[in-house]
Amino acid sequence: MRPTSPPRRSRLADGREILYFDDSPGRRGEPTPDARELPVRDAPSELRHDPLVDEWVIIATHRQDRTYLPSASDCPLCPSRGTTHTEVPDSGYDVVVFENRFPSLPATAPAETLAGRCEVVCYDSDHAGSFASLSAARLRTVGEAWAQRTAELSRDPRVAHVFVFENRGAEIGVTLDHPHGQVYAYPFLPPTIERMLSAARAHHATHASCLACDLLADEVADGRRIVAETEHAIAYVPLAARWPFEVHAVPRRHVPDLAGLADAERDGVVALEADILARLDGLFGDRTPYMAGWLQAPTGDGRDLFHLRLQMISPQRARGRLKHLAGSETIAGAFINDVRPEDAAERLRQANGRDR
Amino acid sequence: MRPTSPPRRSRLADGREILYFDDSPGRRGEPTPDARELPVRDAPSELRHDPLVDEWVIIATHRQDRTYLPSASDCPLCPSRGTTHTEVPDSGYDVVVFENRFPSLPATAPAETLAGRCEVVCYDSDHAGSFASLSAARLRTVGEAWAQRTAELSRDPRVAHVFVFENRGAEIGVTLDHPHGQVYAYPFLPPTIERMLSAARAHHATHASCLACDLLADEVADGRRIVAETEHAIAYVPLAARWPFEVHAVPRRHVPDLAGLADAERDGVVALEADILARLDGLFGDRTPYMAGWLQAPTGDGRDLFHLRLQMISPQRARGRLKHLAGSETIAGAFINDVRPEDAAERLRQANGRDR
Repeated sequence: MRPTSPPRRSRLADGREILYFDDSPGRRGEPTPDARELPVRDAPSELRHDPLVDEWVIIATHRQDRTYLPSASDCPLCPSRGTTHTEVPDSGYDVVVFENRFPSLPATAPAETLAGRCEVVCYDSDHAGSFASLSAARLRTVGEAWAQRTAELSRDPRVAHVFVFENRGAEIGVTLDHPHGQVYAYPFLPPTIERMLSAARAHHATHASCLACDLLADEVADGRRIVAETEHAIAYVPLAARWPFEVHAVPRRHVPDLAGLADAERDGVVALEADILARLDGLFGDRTPYMAGWLQAPTGDGRDLFHLRLQMISPQRARGRLKHLAGSETIAGAFINDVRPEDAAERLRQANGRDR
Repeated sequence: MRPTSPPRRSRLADGREILYFDDSPGRRGEPTPDARELPVRDAPSELRHDPLVDEWVIIATHRQDRTYLPSASDCPLCPSRGTTHTEVPDSGYDVVVFENRFPSLPATAPAETLAGRCEVVCYDSDHAGSFASLSAARLRTVGEAWAQRTAELSRDPRVAHVFVFENRGAEIGVTLDHPHGQVYAYPFLPPTIERMLSAARAHHATHASCLACDLLADEVADGRRIVAETEHAIAYVPLAARWPFEVHAVPRRHVPDLAGLADAERDGVVALEADILARLDGLFGDRTPYMAGWLQAPTGDGRDLFHLRLQMISPQRARGRLKHLAGSETIAGAFINDVRPEDAAERLRQANGRDR
């Protein structure tokens, strides 16, 4: 196992941080300086509290004019080439992370506790790539970058939760094709994390055990919804899946977040993610839209109760047909799933994945 | 004011109930019998509990083959004509309500407490109509039908919540064009109602007042987000709106559900709904997709704390551009709204509504 080494760090012309993570650390030199003149952006995002359900909502008006599906030659996530200057000053990179120029979360706020941070994570300099087709070495570097960002952002006292995720597909509103994910450092606990924590707490009070560990044991004993597994992690369709194709990957060991995984565990679960996403492409075609997000422990209270979980969702319910959320889901909050979880698991088991 | 009279009742060929509500009661005779031979449908829906967040999810597999955007001549919600037999045996109707042939909620369940009921509410026999363009008399009949269904279904001890709603637009997955809404009688409290109730309870414990009444007073005092108002109800964009165009209409009087409104109050708030939906069409074109749903009090505990609220949401954020939910919303539960609520309110105020 190669040792994890710190990223190479630099700043973009407007002061945003950029971090390079390399497949073979030590082989690349100093980051190239950003040759652009970029005005410092005023990003008037705002957090507002909804008292009706006691949740925070992000108002991010300026994003209406963000870059929308540029052609490959105008892609801001490709490396810079000659006089074409992109968001990445270097002419090549393995994995690069930088602060989003159009952040949803306010970088500064009247109250410090309401500031957050949005980062972009580029998985590869090849515009046409995808997460599921990255090499094993690259998947490892991506996993290292995620763990490093989780650890570093969690140390900021303003950050309540670090959300590492990827959206893919114009069908779900993605505006850039280049293979990339994102990191949101929320200054509040996102509603799902809050609910998961409260269910975990109630379970622990009654059973003196971890809810996710117990559910995982149930799934293994039942077997019908398991899609794939490795030494360190299991991927399954949950009994009460909300989406036609929804897979959760859970480390076997009780661990709060990506930073808490041992290297081999992290490699295993990241490889499992690529395998599941490849199966989705296998079922529905090459660019199946999906969302994948790591539900991690809060940075504060309740860390010990929380069990890391990767959620992968495709709204595709059949070729050419998407699941849409309507009144029952959007207004009442009650999800209707048109595909039996056991059937989804069976189809995903039969689909072509990738070697792990 | 004409007196509210009971609906004319009948049954469809497979035993489902059908109820006719008339603009001018007493002028139509007995319902026409259903001339079809219809097999009794086995609707294998199932409710499953998601322990991770303590919520119920509906698994409704059979809906994959429900009628999908039929042409007007095959519409199952149009009146029957000659040898063309639809879901409505009569050759004309004002408002008709019947049990859905493809219900999401299981009509029967191993445990009685997990059975529910799904109804279709047709607003007009004209296939090309829309809620926003119904006559004032018809809006009144629709409101009566909603109140009657709320009252009757609430008396069933298995029903925890009656959700009256409408989805419009293929963009959000609607499969039938005919102007219609739905009623879901859930055997559980939908997650949003549960959260609203818990916030209302906490507010009442601290302030000894209704949260919704207090918020309404704040909105009236502030004024910036109010879109329209009548003697009995106010429509405003909430401070922490989640959607580009989201409007809530709230009766001024503290009342738990549609059945609790006086006739004039109900007429007023239903007319306000038609006005707001007309404004959305005015902004974005004739068939702007939307969801509209009545958040009503639970049938059991907490009724007194709950204040009836109509939520109207359009995912349209600009002409030809929809808001999509992605990882932050779908997985973490944290909404990002690209339109400032004050700006949305201003645009809706300027848009053409309809007379009230």
